[in-house]
Amino acid sequence: MLSKGGCPKTMLSIKDALEALEGRWKLLILFTLSEGPKRFRQISKDVGGITDKVLSKELKSLEANRLIERNVYDTFPPTVEYSITAHGLSLEKVLDELHFWGLAHRKKIIGK
Amino acid sequence: MLSKGGCPKTMLSIKDALEALEGRWKLLILFTLSEGPKRFRQISKDVGGITDKVLSKELKSLEANRLIERNVYDTFPPTVEYSITAHGLSLEKVLDELHFWGLAHRKKIIGK
Repeated sequence: MLSKGGCPKTMLSIKDALEALEGRWKLLILFTLSEGPKRFRQISKDVGGITDKVLSKELKSLEANRLIERNVYDTFPPTVEYSITAHGLSLEKVLDELHFWGLAHRKKIIGK
Repeated sequence: MLSKGGCPKTMLSIKDALEALEGRWKLLILFTLSEGPKRFRQISKDVGGITDKVLSKELKSLEANRLIERNVYDTFPPTVEYSITAHGLSLEKVLDELHFWGLAHRKKIIGK
């Protein structure tokens, strides 16, 4: 597949994907939201090592790409939850393959 | 798979993978090298829009992660070629899934 895929169109699709998922955080945020809707604090805790400012920016970008939804509930004070969309869930196979590759890479390079 | 995968170990493997592949260029470089060994200029042309300084840095990082190899041939002047390693080729499925997802994403979000 790889060696057949050198056409500009394929390069374009990978560029599109990388643009939507750019940076080290977006896939991790989607991964934790795949477990179920979560509030800002919980996402921050699950992802680990991300500042509030960056998390806020990443959530907005994911929302703009329709990968997650921001839901405001009419409680007092209002509750805000983030949930993954069907489009976000369609990244399942990408995440699966990254997971398997990450395991193999750790074994090979990091050696544990 | 996604919903089962919320354990720290799985998050770690995805973090490992994202760290090795960080940024918008590395996967594109690997993708073009999957067609065969190439020289610096050719890689730069194929990837498009990357500066020499950044490409040089990315090639070094990919080499450190044993995803590509730098081969120097004893010609005059010496010829330098970069080729993908077996470990780099093992990213095939990740690239495939990113490609399919990128196609679907373009249709959904960019609408063409």
